[in-house]
Parts: sequence; structure tokens; C-alpha cells
Amino acid sequence: MRPRYTAFTVGLGSLTRLHHRRFLTAPNPSEDFDFILYVANKTKSINKALNDFVPLCTHPLLHKIREAMRYSLLSNGKRVRPVLCLAACELVGGRESVAMPTACAVEMIHASSLIQDDLPCMDDDNFRRGKPTNHKVFGENIAVLAADALIALAVKETATPVSSGVPPERHLRAILELARAVGTEGLVGGQAADLAGEGISFENGIGLDHLEFIHIHKTAVLLEAAVVTGAIIGGGTDEEIERLRRYARCVGLMFQVVDDVLDVTKSSEELGKTAGKDLIAGKLTYPKVMGVEKSREYAKSLNKEARGYLHGFESDKVAPLLFFADYIVNRQN
Amino acid sequence: MRPRYTAFTVGLGSLTRLHHRRFLTAPNPSEDFDFILYVANKTKSINKALNDFVPLCTHPLLHKIREAMRYSLLSNGKRVRPVLCLAACELVGGRESVAMPTACAVEMIHASSLIQDDLPCMDDDNFRRGKPTNHKVFGENIAVLAADALIALAVKETATPVSSGVPPERHLRAILELARAVGTEGLVGGQAADLAGEGISFENGIGLDHLEFIHIHKTAVLLEAAVVTGAIIGGGTDEEIERLRRYARCVGLMFQVVDDVLDVTKSSEELGKTAGKDLIAGKLTYPKVMGVEKSREYAKSLNKEARGYLHGFESDKVAPLLFFADYIVNRQN
Repeated sequence: MRPRYTAFTVGLGSLTRLHHRRFLTAPNPSEDFDFILYVANKTKSINKALNDFVPLCTHPLLHKIREAMRYSLLSNGKRVRPVLCLAACELVGGRESVAMPTACAVEMIHASSLIQDDLPCMDDDNFRRGKPTNHKVFGENIAVLAADALIALAVKETATPVSSGVPPERHLRAILELARAVGTEGLVGGQAADLAGEGISFENGIGLDHLEFIHIHKTAVLLEAAVVTGAIIGGGTDEEIERLRRYARCVGLMFQVVDDVLDVTKSSEELGKTAGKDLIAGKLTYPKVMGVEKSREYAKSLNKEARGYLHGFESDKVAPLLFFADYIVNRQN
Repeated sequence: MRPRYTAFTVGLGSLTRLHHRRFLTAPNPSEDFDFILYVANKTKSINKALNDFVPLCTHPLLHKIREAMRYSLLSNGKRVRPVLCLAACELVGGRESVAMPTACAVEMIHASSLIQDDLPCMDDDNFRRGKPTNHKVFGENIAVLAADALIALAVKETATPVSSGVPPERHLRAILELARAVGTEGLVGGQAADLAGEGISFENGIGLDHLEFIHIHKTAVLLEAAVVTGAIIGGGTDEEIERLRRYARCVGLMFQVVDDVLDVTKSSEELGKTAGKDLIAGKLTYPKVMGVEKSREYAKSLNKEARGYLHGFESDKVAPLLFFADYIVNRQN
């Protein structure tokens, strides 16, 4: 059984019909591409840029809020989204430096959403990545403000013209993608749907549509925004941008399918977080709907589809996104 | 005694030196301008546009969040900020329609900030404009999300190109102004400063600098953004934009001075809200620092200064902003 993920294909029908067939053959990247080194280098640049975008503030009235922003933004994150943003920019021929503010903006939005998800009125979590959550350290009021300030800063950095002459139209398009990823079409919509589904179990009528709505909005839309804004700022053609959008949608959904499978097949020790959480919470998951094996097959088919959308890009530049998709589907924690 | 409001003049020194002298004489608008009718007409257009920007949503998972956004956005607000935005646009020669999305964006940001200010972790208010606050009706989690969604929508509307061909550079400039008004340089900074000052009374060392920092960030910056974005989208020259910025800064501060005076001189009945609240809360206010009479004089001098910055604009178009400043300084509730 293959889930319907119709929400992914809305508005992209014609593109699909035109290109789907030739996308099914994935390009073969150079065997000697060192993905781990690539990610490590990008992460280093991103961490430096993030630190520069939110410097310490000595003003006595702003010191605490700035500290709260830095606490969540500069924590030990995997930087998946900004790495994808930079990779997409370079894939379409842009330089890393032109997309760096946008890559950092995507990470700011991600950090903001994590602060909010952890709030007492949301998931009420005390720890995140092994550290006390933002509101535990700075208080709930400052945490709420820090989440806002990170969104505002993300918008500011994406709206600031870069010296290398990216046309203002492209900045506006990138901002529209980010605004969509934050609002009811993105993170807010996903969290609202998650709250609307609380207390409703699969047996009680919550369906696959609801599950995919949450995943698409909470996970896939921001991954998509990362890739698409990178391609926009990097100077990609409309066709390139839409192909990368479809790649990102597959990867975003795949990410969640794999997450669900790991939750039921791995121990807490292997995961580095509580295993079986979804099962205990009675959450609808892919293994619950289609079984573990079919879920794995589904993840593999999404990976194949994602790789297909990369066909036609220069083969020496495509390696990061190909390896990234493989990494997601094969990850063990 | 005239308070130092140095934060207002930073970076504008040269403009001041060049133009201050001739700005001291205010223009005389036509006597027959009907300010009340002007505001009523603008408010009607704005309310219609706001309603169109956030239509009801029939999607079962998004219905509640959209309702929450509409509840606060379409409530009985005075629409001061969007009216100012449209007036500034028309003053520099733009049509109302080109600035309408930006005017609505400013109101969305204002509504978002009110939802947040009322949260249990902030001011913990149960009523706003005579109605239960957003979190009382929809729950704290939906209120937090509605506030985010309004910010995201504000950014989206300002980033969306208008058909009448406002250059994308101007959209970007407007977005930068709004991002500044939301973040640590604006509403977030003001609220953080307000929280940092809690429990500290004037006698204990909280000073006029602190008071003005809060007012500038919580009130004046968004009024300024309203006027400045209107002038940017309307096609104003850099000099016109900066003169209107200074006008708005004066009006923003004047608004707060008058508010403080009313709090100690009027009854609750006259104000339509609890009088003497600031006094009871031990808050630092202008009457406390300089007495009621000097505060009134200060407000008048700010009005004179504000009117001065409007000198040189076409006299038949300047009436709304002149009358608006008079309205603020003379208001009785």
C-alpha cells in the first residue's frame, strides 16, 4: 500500500506529467565524495554565521532576551536545514556566501519552533538535546519573546540585500517561502493540527490524511523552504526550483517515515531518546498503518523519487543532495 | 524640564541640522477637512481588507487557528496604525490601494502583540476591549500560534508584489522596517525591557531612560513603521521618508505622554478603563517625573515638533497627519 500524499502534488501536476518519467533514473554522483566532511565544513561555516547574526548584547535591558535567542539557536543542532539550503544554492550555480543569511534564517525559524513546541502550553518539555528547554532557563515570557525575535531576525536577514547582487525579486520570493513555512500553511498549521488531533487515536477516526497533514506542515514544509530558498537565492531557473521543491517534499516525508520506523524498532539507547514514545502515546504512525516492512519500502520509494528529481543537474554538484537523501533513509538514530 | 529622548535622534543628526529650522513652522491645512469622516472611511476600507486577508477556513484542522486570528484581528480596534500608513502613502503621492496590504500587515503585527501581551506568562489579562482575551477563548496554545500566524501573514502580504508595480526594492525596505518593529529593536525589546523593570520602582533606580526605552519600543516603533512603510510603498523620496519617520517618532512618544497624563487626571468612567492603574502599580510615568503641567507642555512641544516635520509637503494632502497629531495631543480618553 502506498499512501496518498496528494497535498504534495497539488499545483505541480503539469510539471509531474512532463518530467516524471525521466526523473525516475537517478544520476550517479562521484564515488569519492566525502559527505561527512562536506557536512562538517558547512556546519562550521553556518555556526560561525549564526553566532555573528546574534552577537552578545551588553544593553542591560536586552541582555537576557539576546541570551535566550543564542541559547536555542547556537545549541548543538544538526543544521540539516541550512546545509540543505547552501547545497541547493551551490547546485544551481550560486556561491555559498550569497545564501548564508537565508540558510541561517531557516535555522532561526527552526529554533523558534522548537522553543514554542517545548512551552508548558504545548508539549511541556523540560529537556531538548540534553539541555534544559529555553523556558526552563529564561522563564516562559522570555522564551515566547525569544521565539518571536528569532522569526523577526530571520525575516530581516533574508530581506537584507547581499552585496553580490542577488536581485530583490529573489529576496522577496525567498521571504514568501519562509512566511509560508511559518504560518498556517506551515509550522503553525502543523502544530494546530497536532493539537486538534490530541486525544483522538487512529481507532477513533484520526486518519492517514491527518497524519500526513501534520508531518507535511511540521517537518516537510521547512525542509522544502530550506532547499527552495537556497535555489531561489542561488539563481536557479523556475524549473530547477520546482524540481528541488519536489525533491525536498519527498525527503521531508521520508524523514518522518524513517523516524516512525526507528521509534518501534530501536532501543532508547540506540536512539538517544525514549523509544516507543509514539506507541505509548497512541499516536498514528506509518508502521501502525502499513506495518514496519511496508514503511521501509515506502521510505525507499520516496528516496528513489527524490533522487529522480535531481536528474539533469550537473553531476559533480549533485552529490550533497543525493547523499543527504541516502543518509536520511539509512539513518539508525 | 525637557526629557532627553536621545534614542530618537541617533543617526538623524545631519537631517536635523539641515532641516530643523524650517520645520519649526507648521503648515496650515484646509479648515474644512473632516478628520472624523476621513478616519471613518479609511477604517471601513481597512476592515474590509483585513477580513479578506484572513478568510474563514473550512479545513477541520485549521478552522480553530483561523478563528483565533480573526477574533483578535477583526475586533473593535481603532486602526490607528493602518490609517497612518495609508495617510503617509497618499501624502507622498501613492494610491491607497498600493499600501493597503502593508497597512493591514502593520495591524496584524499590532494584533499579534496584543495577544502576546495578554498571555498568562506576560500581563495575564482576561479582558481586552471589553471582550475575553484570545487565550481565554481559544486556549493558551492556540493564542500563541495565532500570534505567530499573524506575524507570518503580515510578512507574506508585505512581500507579495502589488499589481500596480511598486518596485521590489521598496517591498524589501518595508519588510525590513516591519521586521525591526517586531524584533529586539521593537516590540520584543520593549516587552523584554518592561519585564526587566518589573518590581523596580522609580525610587529604586528605574530611570527616565528605561521608561522611554520601553515606550519607544512598545509604542513608537510600530507607529513609526506604519508611517514609514506607507511612505516607502507610496514612492516617497528618502528625504520624505525620513521626515515622516521623525514625525511618527514624535507622535509615538506624545501618545504615551498623553496616556500617562490621562491615567492620573481622568476617572475610570471617562477613560473606559481603570484609571490610576500606573500609580497603583508604582510605574514610572511622565507626571511622576515632571508633574502633570510639565507633561502637558512636553506633549504640546512634541506636537509642534511633529507638525514641523510635515512642512514642505503639499498642503492639501497633509491634513490627515496634522489632524492626527492634534487628535492625539487633545484626546480625553
